Amino acid sequence: MNLFMEFLLLLPIIIYAYIEAFVKLFIPVKRKSVSGELVLITGAGHGIGRATAYEFANRQSRLVLWDINKHGVEETAAECRRLGATAHEFVVDCSKREEIYSAAEKTAKAFLPAMMNNNHGHIVTVASAAGHLAASFMVTYSSSKFAAVGFHKALTQELSALGKDGIKTSCLCPVFVNTGFVKNPSIRLMKVLEPEKVANKLLEGILTNQKMIFVPSFLKIHLILEKILPEHAVAAVYKLQNIQFDAVVGYRNKVISD
Amino acid sequence: MNLFMEFLLLLPIIIYAYIEAFVKLFIPVKRKSVSGELVLITGAGHGIGRATAYEFANRQSRLVLWDINKHGVEETAAECRRLGATAHEFVVDCSKREEIYSAAEKTAKAFLPAMMNNNHGHIVTVASAAGHLAASFMVTYSSSKFAAVGFHKALTQELSALGKDGIKTSCLCPVFVNTGFVKNPSIRLMKVLEPEKVANKLLEGILTNQKMIFVPSFLKIHLILEKILPEHAVAAVYKLQNIQFDAVVGYRNKVISD
Repeated sequence: MNLFMEFLLLLPIIIYAYIEAFVKLFIPVKRKSVSGELVLITGAGHGIGRATAYEFANRQSRLVLWDINKHGVEETAAECRRLGATAHEFVVDCSKREEIYSAAEKTAKAFLPAMMNNNHGHIVTVASAAGHLAASFMVTYSSSKFAAVGFHKALTQELSALGKDGIKTSCLCPVFVNTGFVKNPSIRLMKVLEPEKVANKLLEGILTNQKMIFVPSFLKIHLILEKILPEHAVAAVYKLQNIQFDAVVGYRNKVISD
Repeated sequence: MNLFMEFLLLLPIIIYAYIEAFVKLFIPVKRKSVSGELVLITGAGHGIGRATAYEFANRQSRLVLWDINKHGVEETAAECRRLGATAHEFVVDCSKREEIYSAAEKTAKAFLPAMMNNNHGHIVTVASAAGHLAASFMVTYSSSKFAAVGFHKALTQELSALGKDGIKTSCLCPVFVNTGFVKNPSIRLMKVLEPEKVANKLLEGILTNQKMIFVPSFLKIHLILEKILPEHAVAAVYKLQNIQFDAVVGYRNKVISD
């Protein structure tokens, strides 16, 4: 089939996809059940990780909780058990490859090869709005979150190419969350989020197999604007939002150079 | 000033920015001179780095060339000197932080603090089309290139916030380049690029202070389509392009799991 014909054939596909997307707006989305499912959560001792653990505990999932902080992860696990879920906690430093492998042996089922064999599972990548929009004074953080978004997109593409349609992926992209990571953040037009609110939106996204979970959801519009507006207009929109914060934990200071 | 008024004031800025962008299409862009400028190129022993060194040598820049491969970088430096430029080569492994610092002492001027003091310079980040579009079987590569794009965007934003308007930034995003990194790549609608062609476009972009340099330039349209088309239509466009390759150097195999 020649290229011209293929282009012509793209048109009905695009029109159909638009109609499909439009119709779906009015159909209530089916939520899948996660009761009894094995759920591994990293950074479960604090903030979004902890709040997410509670959401799954409320739905009677079997929880495997990781955190670098022993006290924090034990507290989370105790509360999950109080909520009626089974929970196993492990102290893991995800920056150390060997530790991940050693903990992984105990939780082998939580990983990709097993998911591939069963063609069943859901992988959530925790990124950030800063993985889509550049932020001053957060160059390293932005880079790592852009990488997280890229990882999610490439993994999604690859699973689809391999025909593993039973393994779903989601990428969580919230604006500032009140977890202590950034000090005194503020942004006009948007509120600083609480971890519980983010975990709630995350669960909603997982249960409905949403690929990109923006919190708040109108962040998506901002991203489209950034692509279609000319450069100086984008700069004006950024200025209007007036993103501010005092410091990022782990950074020596806000300025990239003295 | 209240938020509503500020929104109203955004409108003329957006309209002005569109008109400005439109008018600029018809005005020949001024190219800056890089004669006598100090230019540091990493990975200068091969491929795009080498071709870029030749482009700058032709314009009589003062070159500092880095590569992990001694023979390669010496060859590049010799050719640059033959073209009439001064060139100093160093064997540097950019994956080792200490080596960068030690070589940096010799080329301190090439770095950001000095650029900041003089409010003069240009930082080029070498990314890839894979830093914008997810590619199957290149999960790690995609992640690192997404990170490179994020680094460029955040750095650009930060320099602007600091008022350092004399320091320009560019991000190079080519599709497959024939450098041996990916074996037998093919993509419909686009040709596999030669390093010389990419270096040529890169120079053009640097001299005209272009922020994002897509090669080929219509890649930008693809990115906008990806944002505005519904999911299934995007999948159809990907399928039409039929991206293929045999292997990526450094990857054990194409499949993420057995």
